Amino acid sequence: MMNHKNFASDNYSGVHPAIMQALATANVGHVPAYGYDEFTDELQTVIRQHFGDKAHALPVFNGTGANVVGLQAINPRWGAVICTESAHIHQDESTAPQVVGGLKLLAIATDDGKLTPELIKTQLYNIGSEHRAQPSVVYISQTTEYGTCYTTDELKAICQTAHEYGMKVFVDGARLSNAAAYLGISFKEMICETGVDMVSFGGTKNGMMMGECLVVFDETLAKSLVFLRKVGLQTASKMRFISAQFIELLRNDLYLHNAKQANDMATLLAGELDKLGIQPIYQVQSNGVFVKLSKQAADAARQKYAFYDWDTQGTVRLMCSFDTTSDDVLDLASLIKQA
Amino acid sequence: MMNHKNFASDNYSGVHPAIMQALATANVGHVPAYGYDEFTDELQTVIRQHFGDKAHALPVFNGTGANVVGLQAINPRWGAVICTESAHIHQDESTAPQVVGGLKLLAIATDDGKLTPELIKTQLYNIGSEHRAQPSVVYISQTTEYGTCYTTDELKAICQTAHEYGMKVFVDGARLSNAAAYLGISFKEMICETGVDMVSFGGTKNGMMMGECLVVFDETLAKSLVFLRKVGLQTASKMRFISAQFIELLRNDLYLHNAKQANDMATLLAGELDKLGIQPIYQVQSNGVFVKLSKQAADAARQKYAFYDWDTQGTVRLMCSFDTTSDDVLDLASLIKQA
Amino acid sequence: MMNHKNFASDNYSGVHPAIMQALATANVGHVPAYGYDEFTDELQTVIRQHFGDKAHALPVFNGTGANVVGLQAINPRWGAVICTESAHIHQDESTAPQVVGGLKLLAIATDDGKLTPELIKTQLYNIGSEHRAQPSVVYISQTTEYGTCYTTDELKAICQTAHEYGMKVFVDGARLSNAAAYLGISFKEMICETGVDMVSFGGTKNGMMMGECLVVFDETLAKSLVFLRKVGLQTASKMRFISAQFIELLRNDLYLHNAKQANDMATLLAGELDKLGIQPIYQVQSNGVFVKLSKQAADAARQKYAFYDWDTQGTVRLMCSFDTTSDDVLDLASLIKQA
Amino acid sequence: MMNHKNFASDNYSGVHPAIMQALATANVGHVPAYGYDEFTDELQTVIRQHFGDKAHALPVFNGTGANVVGLQAINPRWGAVICTESAHIHQDESTAPQVVGGLKLLAIATDDGKLTPELIKTQLYNIGSEHRAQPSVVYISQTTEYGTCYTTDELKAICQTAHEYGMKVFVDGARLSNAAAYLGISFKEMICETGVDMVSFGGTKNGMMMGECLVVFDETLAKSLVFLRKVGLQTASKMRFISAQFIELLRNDLYLHNAKQANDMATLLAGELDKLGIQPIYQVQSNGVFVKLSKQAADAARQKYAFYDWDTQGTVRLMCSFDTTSDDVLDLASLIKQA
Repeated sequence: MMNHKNFASDNYSGVHPAIMQALATANVGHVPAYGYDEFTDELQTVIRQHFGDKAHALPVFNGTGANVVGLQAINPRWGAVICTESAHIHQDESTAPQVVGGLKLLAIATDDGKLTPELIKTQLYNIGSEHRAQPSVVYISQTTEYGTCYTTDELKAICQTAHEYGMKVFVDGARLSNAAAYLGISFKEMICETGVDMVSFGGTKNGMMMGECLVVFDETLAKSLVFLRKVGLQTASKMRFISAQFIELLRNDLYLHNAKQANDMATLLAGELDKLGIQPIYQVQSNGVFVKLSKQAADAARQKYAFYDWDTQGTVRLMCSFDTTSDDVLDLASLIKQA
Repeated sequence: MMNHKNFASDNYSGVHPAIMQALATANVGHVPAYGYDEFTDELQTVIRQHFGDKAHALPVFNGTGANVVGLQAINPRWGAVICTESAHIHQDESTAPQVVGGLKLLAIATDDGKLTPELIKTQLYNIGSEHRAQPSVVYISQTTEYGTCYTTDELKAICQTAHEYGMKVFVDGARLSNAAAYLGISFKEMICETGVDMVSFGGTKNGMMMGECLVVFDETLAKSLVFLRKVGLQTASKMRFISAQFIELLRNDLYLHNAKQANDMATLLAGELDKLGIQPIYQVQSNGVFVKLSKQAADAARQKYAFYDWDTQGTVRLMCSFDTTSDDVLDLASLIKQA
Repeated sequence: MMNHKNFASDNYSGVHPAIMQALATANVGHVPAYGYDEFTDELQTVIRQHFGDKAHALPVFNGTGANVVGLQAINPRWGAVICTESAHIHQDESTAPQVVGGLKLLAIATDDGKLTPELIKTQLYNIGSEHRAQPSVVYISQTTEYGTCYTTDELKAICQTAHEYGMKVFVDGARLSNAAAYLGISFKEMICETGVDMVSFGGTKNGMMMGECLVVFDETLAKSLVFLRKVGLQTASKMRFISAQFIELLRNDLYLHNAKQANDMATLLAGELDKLGIQPIYQVQSNGVFVKLSKQAADAARQKYAFYDWDTQGTVRLMCSFDTTSDDVLDLASLIKQA
Repeated sequence: MMNHKNFASDNYSGVHPAIMQALATANVGHVPAYGYDEFTDELQTVIRQHFGDKAHALPVFNGTGANVVGLQAINPRWGAVICTESAHIHQDESTAPQVVGGLKLLAIATDDGKLTPELIKTQLYNIGSEHRAQPSVVYISQTTEYGTCYTTDELKAICQTAHEYGMKVFVDGARLSNAAAYLGISFKEMICETGVDMVSFGGTKNGMMMGECLVVFDETLAKSLVFLRKVGLQTASKMRFISAQFIELLRNDLYLHNAKQANDMATLLAGELDKLGIQPIYQVQSNGVFVKLSKQAADAARQKYAFYDWDTQGTVRLMCSFDTTSDDVLDLASLIKQA
């Protein structure tokens, strides 16, 4: 087993000790299954503190599940989902959106992984025609797959455009905490005050063992999602153990603490690489650093630390996690320097 | 929070302490995600000790996920799944089999929740016709939804009939351990030597926090399932935490210890009820007791212990769990007696 | 080629001469595709004469398409469709309802192919639970697959029960004209005044070349169906050629003329068989006669006339078509008599 | 009703008189339904004359049906279909590929609507990973949606690349006849000798009333398609009336005669427009002409002739049909000239 951290993905890391403790604490006696327990009840209260009074929380197992179930709930059978070419639902979720959700994607090429009103509008043609899948949802990732962040102004503009054309906005928030840490704003400011319709709030990549949470702001929709979550294979029987993790993550801002550490380590890493004349390809606005490494440098670093090749031209993705330390970062940078 | 056990379902209980310990032990450092970790590797070895040398283990999140993904892998798009009217996939998984898996069910009424070659054959008509969904898989639950168990002879007969007609046999093993404990046989004897093609081996209802495991005996099928599991929203990123639970469950026969305790408590409960003149509706062959209670008795018992009404005629299901104690059982019986 | 009629199915027959003439008449010049033509416009008017002022007509290709697209439009993703065990969607449409529509069926055994409020109510349990597919639509066939007819009182009772429980009523009207002819009532009386929510009005089995027509009474639903019809592969590009057939079928009551001839021939056949001591298994209320024939009689008849075995106990289905003549019927009966 | 032709689409036209006659001729007596008739048998023979001895023909209702059913047959549930951004399955079939077929599309931008080995290879990454939909089928349209044609060399190169990477090649041949007419080659040369795995041979846009035909060259696949066609709502009960049209279309090369007329009229139109200084945007290689018209010219022409705007920058598509005459073309050109 690797005894050190690596830079492959923030889901290579384990579980934060406080989350482990919360799991142990929740392991007391018998409680109702399938979300009808006190922990999931309490999660509603906690989520409302962070996402506003209208928020409803629906814990699910994983990110692909959250995306497919969530999008299915707000997309008519003849609807299309506008997203980027780099979108997780387009690149990394196999055919789950199509096979499970019947979702048609309209993927748009971008420079930085971010949609804009202008880009969205390029897909708004043949509206009203039954021959073309009708744009119905805008899917964005916050942070993006390239580690960049939407500002609140950018989010507002997207939501305004979407709503103007009768579309909903879904935010894939697998790394929503990292965006909050970078932007220095609350989820209320980022999600509720910008007009986002649904968000999948990620736990797994921020120190939880497993679990994502769909957050919606409409009661009818929330009720539908209880059914759609079951249909989408995402209803945990011992749900208390997902809810308890989220409660802990949100209590005392552990989510922020963890995300900040991961972000800080990415910033440190980018700084170290800059000293070596290696500049990031995308702005470092969260916990990932995308750089082009020489084969020599990449090979040397990979001897000790795992990370992903992002393309066949030498671009690599270096991800920091909640438990990445400055020692890890400096050691990695030193290996690259030596090479 | 309820401080005592209840009899609602074996997923109302928490996590066995040894499983909690295994989770803590697995929480060390960074490991590859999505099942490419050492724990999931080790699980292959452990599974083969219990299910034979050809077994492949694919951990998933939950039982509905295991059923839908597993059945989809062995059923052609025009195929039908033969099951009982009481089958979990027919009664308790909403439209997941249809919406996610496109699965057509041919549900057969039974007395005791068990299929037989004769019952299966009633559905074997219009073979070769494109107008009728073609029977392709036989789905059985071991234990059944009524708590009864198939003997190895019964399993062999079903597998032989199925294979004779070109069908596969899928066993929903959400409570497979309880069946092993009741029958006093190994999984090899129950599954491999009877000819079963695929089984979902349940962990959640036997002391795990969450997790089921598809077990198959064909390498090509196992490879397909890696893809289908992803499509079916069942690929855990931090999979080590499911695998580590299963390793612990199978090591030193904890699965058997837990199942035996639950079964024994059901037997004790049935005995106590028998003293009151209340006979079980189905034979008590695992951890559930189905009886008809007077409204008075049911109301009195429900004051303290949760359980499910099984129909509108007074039938209730009393489920024992791995942590149910004889005190719990005797106390419940005493409440019923008083009423 | 067979130069005589046979008794296999009312879709073995060809096209009524007046329909052929209507196709030729419609074959003039260029008209907009996909239903935006004058013929499809005119069909709306004609349909309203027969199904009331609120009716919207959506021509589709075939019966399975009509059923799956129509049911999908009124069934939520977590909904179930209550039907009979003998229902066409359960027995004769392969996995199309599941694979294309994600439809879960709750099939009920009946004596005569007809649902009743009492039978429907047997499926109305676990309402509100996300674990069970929620009964949302009642599907009935008029005429039934056994050739029997629902009276208007029976239809009213079904619609009332369905609506009371928040369900919709869908009528598979592949042989709706035969029911109208038998009952001696208009479609308004049969469909609009009983409360049916959607009907697939069949053309193919009553003298058309191909084509069924979904009829709904709600404008929002009609608009959705334009999209769902496209999604469901049922939007004909040269739709005028389906619409023109329906216009002709409904004009001057050709539908009734054709259906009456088929029904009359079935009645004649039943009478002839009765003389031989062979009684129909189901009441002859349309164009089909189900009887048990000796192997000898069946073999002899089959030398000249095709028909279907309905089970393995000697039951056969003898279907009459719009072009079946009394000579055909008397000749068949005489063959059986000789045997 | 419009008494003249227009230039909107080749499915605005009606039915060729010889096809109408074939329909009348096929309307004799009773024949087996669902494709078990003599006409569909004869079609097999006729198709083999044109597509080689291994060809199997499966008539279906329409193009979207042919595409979705055909692609579903050769794409695993986790597979992706590589196509162009302009592909009919991506732009014009709503969500049918996703909802009915679970098909994930990888759409590539092109200049002329044509894929190349180089373009295809841009999508061949993350092979073997369960996280990305695995490229499994290459979908091309012949003629393309821009009216261009693949040469046999281009087809061979695509097939070779596809097969090298374990992918199949599907040709959407809604206008396959127009390509054959343009290239001056047989279907054997275009399809069989280039290595295409499946083609949907179009009838509707070349003078038929309705009907497309899947042609495959593998017997096991052909048998699967009988079932998948039923599942995909594309099995006509009175199939003889589709088969008879195809027999007539292929007999005496009516398909070529019709396609040549449409192509010739497009060439004439392009020539006339060239005289006005209006050049086609794409090479005119079949029956469509794409040009940029001034608003004035477009408006004037539209007074009399319908056609489609192709974008919001003034590009229009002018389609010729089998029954378009030189008078129609010259009159249209004259209207544009006057404006």
